[in-house]
Amino acid sequence: MAKNSWTVSFIGSGNVATRLAQILAANRVCIKQIYSRTMANAETLARLVQAQPIDDLHRMDFSADLIIISISDDAYPNLVAQLPHSNTLLAHTAGAIPMQVLQPASSRIGVFYPLQTLNKLKEVDFAQVPFCIEANNPADEDQLLALASLFSANVQVVNSAQREQLHVASVFACNFSNLMYAIAEDLTQQHNINFSLLKPLIKETAMKIDRLSPAKSQTGPASRGDHHTIAHHLELLNGNSKYQQIYALLSDYIIKHLR
Amino acid sequence: MAKNSWTVSFIGSGNVATRLAQILAANRVCIKQIYSRTMANAETLARLVQAQPIDDLHRMDFSADLIIISISDDAYPNLVAQLPHSNTLLAHTAGAIPMQVLQPASSRIGVFYPLQTLNKLKEVDFAQVPFCIEANNPADEDQLLALASLFSANVQVVNSAQREQLHVASVFACNFSNLMYAIAEDLTQQHNINFSLLKPLIKETAMKIDRLSPAKSQTGPASRGDHHTIAHHLELLNGNSKYQQIYALLSDYIIKHLR
Repeated sequence: MAKNSWTVSFIGSGNVATRLAQILAANRVCIKQIYSRTMANAETLARLVQAQPIDDLHRMDFSADLIIISISDDAYPNLVAQLPHSNTLLAHTAGAIPMQVLQPASSRIGVFYPLQTLNKLKEVDFAQVPFCIEANNPADEDQLLALASLFSANVQVVNSAQREQLHVASVFACNFSNLMYAIAEDLTQQHNINFSLLKPLIKETAMKIDRLSPAKSQTGPASRGDHHTIAHHLELLNGNSKYQQIYALLSDYIIKHLR
Repeated sequence: MAKNSWTVSFIGSGNVATRLAQILAANRVCIKQIYSRTMANAETLARLVQAQPIDDLHRMDFSADLIIISISDDAYPNLVAQLPHSNTLLAHTAGAIPMQVLQPASSRIGVFYPLQTLNKLKEVDFAQVPFCIEANNPADEDQLLALASLFSANVQVVNSAQREQLHVASVFACNFSNLMYAIAEDLTQQHNINFSLLKPLIKETAMKIDRLSPAKSQTGPASRGDHHTIAHHLELLNGNSKYQQIYALLSDYIIKHLR
């Protein structure tokens, strides 16, 4: 079976389903059906990709090569319970959900997880979107790898246990780095400094990861072991004990591990 | 005096002096002299900007409109002690040094601080480089503002006390966000996951600050108050008590302040 002769249907018509259906259709993959509980939503996406809209799971055609399920995390158990058991490959698109959640509904299950914020309203360059692939058998894993590789240059096999660890890592990489920006923003505002002064440095720090391992490019007072400046900064943070606590803990970690 | 009829000399010929002299010359500012303790270094930069190289401070011509001093932080006190007192505007380029360090050498002093990593070997788009300006009198402040505005679109008056706070803020924004990347990298490597999977998310998080205040765009388990996922993540970090401590402290801060 040639990669782009696949037929794919979707359960779900939200941000991720919309973007995935569009990029697959753009790569000449045939999109058969779009299911949504709300017919209008199914129709909106189906129109974009020349598919059949349905709002009744009994009308789902299990002769598709792949059904991608892309719904909100807490809706999976209930949806899976409603599906008849089949031998059609089912793959979900959720970062935090184990593949096994699909087991009641099919003997062939997998994960097709794009690791980026996707939004109906915002174009995305799929070549830059990493895909985490998993399947419960090698043939389907190969097929899902090939499918994502039609448009993404960063496709990898990541099992459910690894995907869980990836989720923890992404909390540090994204949520906690954003917290650091928020604290910096607050500190500048407290002293009537325009936060925009720091934006180019923030972006340069993030772009640098392409050229250098973050562990090897750590800079700043702690990485120089400059205890004088660290003590002075803690004084300047006087009045905000939480910021002092965070500054001290992170500096201590850098001094001990990233010098 | 028209802005670009200024004559400017440099004390120092390192990365910052080189980039500044070049961008000023490109904006038709006349560069008069380049001083370095090492004649070969003075000559290299002087050749690039059609200036006179000198390695003897006694040959410094104080009829220049501005002398920019760009040397390593710890060299300032000694250099300033060697300068004759003059009425020539002197400005340094250091983020962490108070303007007053220049006071022994002139009645007119200021700061001309580019807030970005500058390197002789790497071209930089100066339009995107923020400049922090300070002077001990309004006329010179205006002149330094105008000079930086010749090429930068982000020029602001920042006094020495504010610049100190900006330095603390930049530790959070840059050094600590890089630490978050380093921890994420370590976690992925520990579980045989390719760190490159997280790079697009890291970059998107950093680019987002142009559109949204970081405090308002905080995401992740803590910002949703998802204690179940937080507890699960702390379990997954089992075996690294420092990561657990950092995860718990930062999540606690987000739960209390960024929801």
